[in-house]
Parts: sequence; C-alpha cells; structure tokens
Amino acid sequence: MLLEKYVKARDAKKSILCVGLDPTVKELKAKDSVPEKYFQSKDAGDGLLEFCLHIIEETGEHACAFKPNAQYVSIPMGLERMKKLNRRIHDSGAFSIMDLKLGDIGSTNQSGLYWIKEAGFDALTFSPYAGNIAECVKSARDFGLGVFVLTLMSNPESQWVQKEALFKGKPLYMKVAEEIRDSKADGAVIGATGHVTPEDIFTVRRIVGEDTVFLCPGVGAQGGDVEKLLKAGGRNLLINVSRGVIFAENPRKAAEEYRRSFSLG
Amino acid sequence: MLLEKYVKARDAKKSILCVGLDPTVKELKAKDSVPEKYFQSKDAGDGLLEFCLHIIEETGEHACAFKPNAQYVSIPMGLERMKKLNRRIHDSGAFSIMDLKLGDIGSTNQSGLYWIKEAGFDALTFSPYAGNIAECVKSARDFGLGVFVLTLMSNPESQWVQKEALFKGKPLYMKVAEEIRDSKADGAVIGATGHVTPEDIFTVRRIVGEDTVFLCPGVGAQGGDVEKLLKAGGRNLLINVSRGVIFAENPRKAAEEYRRSFSLG
Repeated sequence: MLLEKYVKARDAKKSILCVGLDPTVKELKAKDSVPEKYFQSKDAGDGLLEFCLHIIEETGEHACAFKPNAQYVSIPMGLERMKKLNRRIHDSGAFSIMDLKLGDIGSTNQSGLYWIKEAGFDALTFSPYAGNIAECVKSARDFGLGVFVLTLMSNPESQWVQKEALFKGKPLYMKVAEEIRDSKADGAVIGATGHVTPEDIFTVRRIVGEDTVFLCPGVGAQGGDVEKLLKAGGRNLLINVSRGVIFAENPRKAAEEYRRSFSLG
Repeated sequence: MLLEKYVKARDAKKSILCVGLDPTVKELKAKDSVPEKYFQSKDAGDGLLEFCLHIIEETGEHACAFKPNAQYVSIPMGLERMKKLNRRIHDSGAFSIMDLKLGDIGSTNQSGLYWIKEAGFDALTFSPYAGNIAECVKSARDFGLGVFVLTLMSNPESQWVQKEALFKGKPLYMKVAEEIRDSKADGAVIGATGHVTPEDIFTVRRIVGEDTVFLCPGVGAQGGDVEKLLKAGGRNLLINVSRGVIFAENPRKAAEEYRRSFSLG
C-alpha cells in the first residue's frame, strides 16, 4: 500500500519533501534549465537521466519521495532509463511518483499502468476529466501502484473547472474528493497557491479522511504557502518542490532547508 | 495549420478515417494484443514499433491520420522510435496525433509540447481539467502543433464530469467548447458512443464553428454510432478506429471498409 511506503519513508527521513524532477531543456528558454555539460556528446535522454541521478544523489537524504513529470521524461528517456532512475530513487530510501495525469478510457489506462509499473514507479497522478477514478484505482492496486487524484491544482486557471463548475450544486473538486473517498484512492493532489484556501484544503481532508496522502505542488517557484498546508492539511502530507530544488545553486542544501521548513513539530 | 493538413490528407485520400495505434501487450490479457512474433528476441519497444509500422504499411492508403496513444507507446518506444513512427506516418500521406491528453501547469505543458514536436507529431490531444486551454493552444501554435481538446469523451463514466457538472448553469462540455472557440483550438474530441446524443454533437458544432476538426473516438470496439456523427458533426470530421483496425484479421481490408462506411456522400 502506498500509505505504508509513504509513512515508512517519511518517518525514516523525518521528511515530507517530494522533489519534483522536471528536467527542462534549454531550448524551452525557461528561467532555469539543465546545464549544458549534461548534453556534451550525449544523447538527450542520457543527459537528462544523468542530471536526475545527480539530483537524487544530492537530495536523497532529505527527500521522502521523487516525482518525475512525464512531460519532461517519458519521451526522451524511455523505459530503460526510467528503470535506472527508479532504482536510484529506491536506493535513496524514497518512493517514486510518475506525474503523468493519466485520464483515459479504461483499457488505455490499463496500458499506462502496465508501463508505469514496468518502469519501476510506486505511484502515479490521475486526472479525473474522463471519470474512471474507481476503475483506475482498482487496476492500479492490482499492479501494486498508488494513485494520486488531481483535486485542486496549483495553477490559477484550474479554478474554473475545479471550483467554479458545480456537481449537484457543489464545486467539482468536492465531488472528486468524494470519489477519492469511495474508491479508496491513495492520495489527492492539492495545490498550495493563492486560490486554494485553508477552507478548501480542510474541506477535502474532511471528505477523504486522514489516511489519504495529500501531494501538494506549488511551493517554491509557484509561490505556494506552506503554513496553510501544515495547518489545514492533516498529518499525511507530501509537499513537492521542483525548480526550487533541482535548479538551486546547491540542491542538497535547498532540499535540507525545505525539509526543515516543512517540519511538522 | 492543422486544418490545412487535415483537409489536404482527407481530400487526397478521400478518407476521414483515423487509425488509433494502441499496441496492447499480451501481459494485459485483453481480448486482442500484438502478436507474439513481434517480440521474439527483440526489445519490447522494437516489437511495438515494428507492429505499428506494419499497420501503417497496410492501412496508410486508407487513413487520413494516425493516432498513437501515449499510454501504449511513450515509455516503451521513447524518442528515436517515435521519430521513425512519425516518418512512416508522413510517408503514407497521413498526419499524426499524439493522444496523450496533456493537461498540466503551463511550464510543464511547454515541455510536453517540445518533446511531442521533437518526436515528429503534428498534433496532440489536451485534457481541460487544469484549464490552460488558450495558453496551451498558443504555445502549440509556436511549435507548429495542433491541439484537439477533450470535450465529450466516449466512455460512459466521463458523463458526470463533462455533462452533469455545470459551469454557470450549463454542462461543462459547453464551457469547454466556448474555450475551444475563443482560443481557436484546432479540434475537439467528441465520442460517438451512446451517451453522446446528436444534440450534444450539434451543440458543440454550433459553438465552435465549422473550422474545428472533430476527432471522434468510440467507433469499432466501443460500439459508437457513425450515422450520428455524419449527420450532426458537420463537414470536418475525423473518425477514429483503433482495435477494429489494428487487430483485424486483415487490417488493410478493415481500414478500407471503415473508410468507405465513413464516406460523406
């Protein structure tokens, strides 16, 4: 069960930090990207893998989990490199979440789960636009995978779908939370940015119960509020930082500082 | 522009058939899967690629587009094999759609678009649970990629999100259609199965206008209704069949028959 993996890693490392592996190529002209040295005379997939392995090496001591995002790694890395990535994550004592926001018809979700398992991940993120939450959670369990369902995301534009759209008079995210509860999904993705209020976080926690792990993105580059999460999120939290760690001048120190600042007591 | 690629391929081949490349491995114990011979003494990624190339070879004459689904190909194939796949698709005169249901925060969508373009695709599918439709369409245009936004899907469970949830009193799919219109997205994904009525299809067409390509899954194994699409969908249709072609005893003949049955006049 994902909850047990989470509790074990959290308690061993005294950390609720999840390091998001979003290795950005320089061609995207973002503020930060993977340094040029990783690509010298190498296949791009090798360079990205090497960068990620370096980050795991530096930050593994302080990370409860790592979360590679599919939009950065799936196509360039492919299966064999992802297996290596996950072996290194597990060697560090952390668990790994494939952040791909799966959300398709049942047979297609099955195939996604199969390859995610083959690549060595412990869990995945799931997007509920196609429904199929209970079906996917059940299949994932058969594969030994945990499912984090997108509930309230960190980007402002997600509001019109997740908070303003209503299901039987209640915001859509509450219906998603009920589906998480009823399907016994392992986790919920709850952003930490401005439009997500402490009341929203508390509402989701009240619906899903204490055993659902909250995966909380938006801290660091997106400016999310950790205090809010620590106060309203309950005891099973996993706070994700991506760019704030992987592109820090000193990723090890950044991870250590984030870990400390997320301290529950 | 995607519309021009679509019109060119459609008119040259007199076909609105899109062949969905969902190469299922036998481990999933589905009704049909990629024959064992493709995996003898080969890497799984090579076997899947070879199967897909065979399907393109057999059906390319009758296909306006091919649509590899990310949950079947991204992890096992990786970048280099996908480039080969797309070269073969283009050699057949068709265009290619990466069916990944992208839907993330802006910077992450950017990275997804970058790798989809690198792999040689012409377009992608997009899931609106995170919002960000206009932003993604704009970025995709910069990359020369077309965007098909999930609007009304083919699986029954998608109804509670897409039809029963209401945005300002109207079904969520209508708001999505308005976003498609306002962002000038290239296409909308509209299922052809039972819960999608001719009125639904007509409503979306009325909102988005005639220049939006409707990508319609659900025909074949999922039992979708082609008549309904041909009557209510307008003139820019692309009807997808996956299992009904790729696992047919004779994929060439199946593609030809589907093409004829989708004939507009």
